[in-house]
Amino acid sequence: MSTHKLILVRHGQSDWNEKNLFTGWVDVKLSEVGIKEATRAGELLKESGLKPDILYTSKLSRAIQTANIALDNADRLFIDVKRNWRLNERHYGALQGKDKAQTLAQYGKEQFMTWRRSFDVPPPPIADDSEFSQAHDERYKDVPKEDLPKTESLELVIKRLLPYWQSDISKDLLAGKTVIVVAHGNSLRALVKHLDNISDEDIAGLNIPTGIPLVYELDDNLKPVKKAEYLDPEAAEAGAAAVAAQGSK
Amino acid sequence: MSTHKLILVRHGQSDWNEKNLFTGWVDVKLSEVGIKEATRAGELLKESGLKPDILYTSKLSRAIQTANIALDNADRLFIDVKRNWRLNERHYGALQGKDKAQTLAQYGKEQFMTWRRSFDVPPPPIADDSEFSQAHDERYKDVPKEDLPKTESLELVIKRLLPYWQSDISKDLLAGKTVIVVAHGNSLRALVKHLDNISDEDIAGLNIPTGIPLVYELDDNLKPVKKAEYLDPEAAEAGAAAVAAQGSK
Repeated sequence: MSTHKLILVRHGQSDWNEKNLFTGWVDVKLSEVGIKEATRAGELLKESGLKPDILYTSKLSRAIQTANIALDNADRLFIDVKRNWRLNERHYGALQGKDKAQTLAQYGKEQFMTWRRSFDVPPPPIADDSEFSQAHDERYKDVPKEDLPKTESLELVIKRLLPYWQSDISKDLLAGKTVIVVAHGNSLRALVKHLDNISDEDIAGLNIPTGIPLVYELDDNLKPVKKAEYLDPEAAEAGAAAVAAQGSK
Repeated sequence: MSTHKLILVRHGQSDWNEKNLFTGWVDVKLSEVGIKEATRAGELLKESGLKPDILYTSKLSRAIQTANIALDNADRLFIDVKRNWRLNERHYGALQGKDKAQTLAQYGKEQFMTWRRSFDVPPPPIADDSEFSQAHDERYKDVPKEDLPKTESLELVIKRLLPYWQSDISKDLLAGKTVIVVAHGNSLRALVKHLDNISDEDIAGLNIPTGIPLVYELDDNLKPVKKAEYLDPEAAEAGAAAVAAQGSK
């Protein structure tokens, strides 16, 4: 049986991760730490011998920078590229641009954790005239207005991501291409939930570490033939624990 | 009349420019100087207010790196990307990997200048088993074997570039997109020759400086409505003179 290889990479630290702000769709770039994480992701890819044929990214700079740096270090800059808003981070609604600690103090731990980790409760929508809104962002000009989110739960991320998985990523995998997807904590959790058939309850406990390629081997129905593997399992475990700890800060 | 905007950028210095080796299709990366040139190209783009919608590059890392760095600095990382071997540098045949000064000493100035600057005399073809051949390079696996060059004159570069100009780049321009092409000295000379209708004789005297965006405004027949302009004309003049001087080293 021939299998299909899918590589997932979560972008490294951005300037706003560092500042502890809710980011979502705000287009923040990688921090120095994030650049190092992307470099490491590329080195891991190169050592692994995996040869991605096509790159998928979101429309957000921090994912694109991560992909560019990683592929440079893996000597795979020449591969085809597709970018789509459906791979974007979860839209954080009115929380975008807000300080996390301040939000926690203002709304209390229960509400805060519900917005962060519940499956289907989105934060309040962002106003179109907010400086952190993407209502007038030129990069989404080809997206129908009714599709463009103003806030999202993880459930809504899955709903906008899966059509693209079906229409594009799946097809490249079934055509025999090794696919690398460089995206975000929540768009990748959405994809992993689908691939590993994780329940709405259990997905809350799943944390994807930054900058460590996660490799799926899929059968012709695009079901995993075995558990997906991180290219550096030890670092991945530490990274996932760090992400989990962040959620309770 | 609406016009169509086309931006051409020649990649910055590579590790082999620095070492004075014939490069051609050998996949060499940018030097530190080249990274600075690419950064400057991005700053010029940003200052200009031009907003490219789609990026075209060759399959060679030095052009892709230049594009990635420039678009990052211009805050346009999110645009669509197409890469094609038809935008590659001229294939330098058996000269690839050879020292320029040594080649000059070995073959004499007349032969050397003929290979460098004649319109239709290619260097001897490279052997498939040369370490500098691309006969087995995975990035060209989808290119029909009979299309893949083993040496090229500028005339042959034009012959393989124009079909792609017609099939892809032209169409995006006519669809109203602002196109940025990041490529190489000779693939860009081929394109400029076509756009400006330069004779086979006069093209020898045309030098394109590295890292300075050249902006065309084209009519609906994709003919220039006025002379194309460099975003930093003074630096472009100095850069072109430097390239011309290189030819006589």
